[in-house]
Amino acid sequence: MRNIQLIIEYDGSRYDGWQKQAGNQKSITIQDKLEDVLNKMENETVTVIGAARTEAGVHAYKQVASFMTNSKLKVYEIKQYLNRFLPRDIAVLEALEVPERFHASFNAGSFEYEYKISIGEVPSVFERKYNYYCFKRPDIAKMKEAAKYLVGKHDFKAFSDNKRMKKSTEREIYSLEIYGDEKEIVITVHGDDFWPHMVRIMVGTLLDVGLSKIEPMDIKRILESKDRDKAGETIEAKGLFLTEVHYK
Amino acid sequence: MRNIQLIIEYDGSRYDGWQKQAGNQKSITIQDKLEDVLNKMENETVTVIGAARTEAGVHAYKQVASFMTNSKLKVYEIKQYLNRFLPRDIAVLEALEVPERFHASFNAGSFEYEYKISIGEVPSVFERKYNYYCFKRPDIAKMKEAAKYLVGKHDFKAFSDNKRMKKSTEREIYSLEIYGDEKEIVITVHGDDFWPHMVRIMVGTLLDVGLSKIEPMDIKRILESKDRDKAGETIEAKGLFLTEVHYK
Repeated sequence: MRNIQLIIEYDGSRYDGWQKQAGNQKSITIQDKLEDVLNKMENETVTVIGAARTEAGVHAYKQVASFMTNSKLKVYEIKQYLNRFLPRDIAVLEALEVPERFHASFNAGSFEYEYKISIGEVPSVFERKYNYYCFKRPDIAKMKEAAKYLVGKHDFKAFSDNKRMKKSTEREIYSLEIYGDEKEIVITVHGDDFWPHMVRIMVGTLLDVGLSKIEPMDIKRILESKDRDKAGETIEAKGLFLTEVHYK
Repeated sequence: MRNIQLIIEYDGSRYDGWQKQAGNQKSITIQDKLEDVLNKMENETVTVIGAARTEAGVHAYKQVASFMTNSKLKVYEIKQYLNRFLPRDIAVLEALEVPERFHASFNAGSFEYEYKISIGEVPSVFERKYNYYCFKRPDIAKMKEAAKYLVGKHDFKAFSDNKRMKKSTEREIYSLEIYGDEKEIVITVHGDDFWPHMVRIMVGTLLDVGLSKIEPMDIKRILESKDRDKAGETIEAKGLFLTEVHYK
């Protein structure tokens, strides 16, 4: 068997996230679409493993995935085959052969995400599918101040919708940067791992700071409370992009 | 009666162009959508005049339109009303009161358009609705050389799909600029008026030059031939944006 790694870009708008939902016949996921095409390629049953289980509506510039196959096709032929038969909102940017021990999920060391907020009196018709829209201009200086409290190793229980909190909720955020101009705010975050909704709750809470609903210092209090209800809302998925997966 | 001018942004993907099609009950145009909302605003019959009759699938960053109304609403209230009830792919950026003699179409002095071509091995899933996709990298230097022949006052019959050529086909192109990097080519054109498909035929023909199907000098020959069949194809509408309308 050969182990093939894929770098994938997708517009998550119409998908129920990355991960196949065994009990849900109606769900359509990115993994489903990839497996449908790969199963036909060599008439074998392929399981595609994704690095990040992106949530419904979340996009990716560079998701990483891997799968085992008996195919004798060259890697560029596999890539061509996939791009020919995948829907146009999923694109394989690269395919390469990797050692059999490589596992796209287990070996992933850290993840980078980007969240986009557009600001203005009237939402842009072109950006509306890939931005959270905000009428009022948030205070970026305050958001940057607040972001500092999230960087580092913390128990992110307050910033997670994970129902089954058996394992440790400690995670490390390596960086959380906020860039902004008159029309847009872009938040980038790099961390070792993320709980369900964690990026979106962090962004939602930072936006509360930017809109002066809470103060930067409150982030510290929310983190320490370990109480999900203290943090802000889970902001819309459509503004979130998986931008990079790092391997050790 | 008051005369109201609108600056409108729209994603033309799902529309049969700007202009209402009297004989075609099934067509849905930007003008239809605006009139539907405005007719309800004051229970009057409104006719919206657009500066440019953008074609099916063509987008606009700044279309200009005007309409007469008996409404007593303030202009910002008209704008709010429109943005509240228009579909989300049409946005009114500005509404202002103008003298009764102002006519969005008759008074328009010149128009600017932009055409986007994306280049690369795999088309971007995010840009696919707003770009023409080209696998092979065109020669931009050649395209720039070719563009020079189109600038100025010419008979653009060869670059038009206008069936009724009663009036003069002479038009003036003030500028035609081509910018490009590894991933994208942007063509901007500014002219006094454009025949149906004219921008798209010009871009299609320039792309033929970029892909070495014809030479820059051939543009001169095509112009002089006044023969539509000599020019290139009408390139896809989805990469075309109306960017500005100038008034005298």
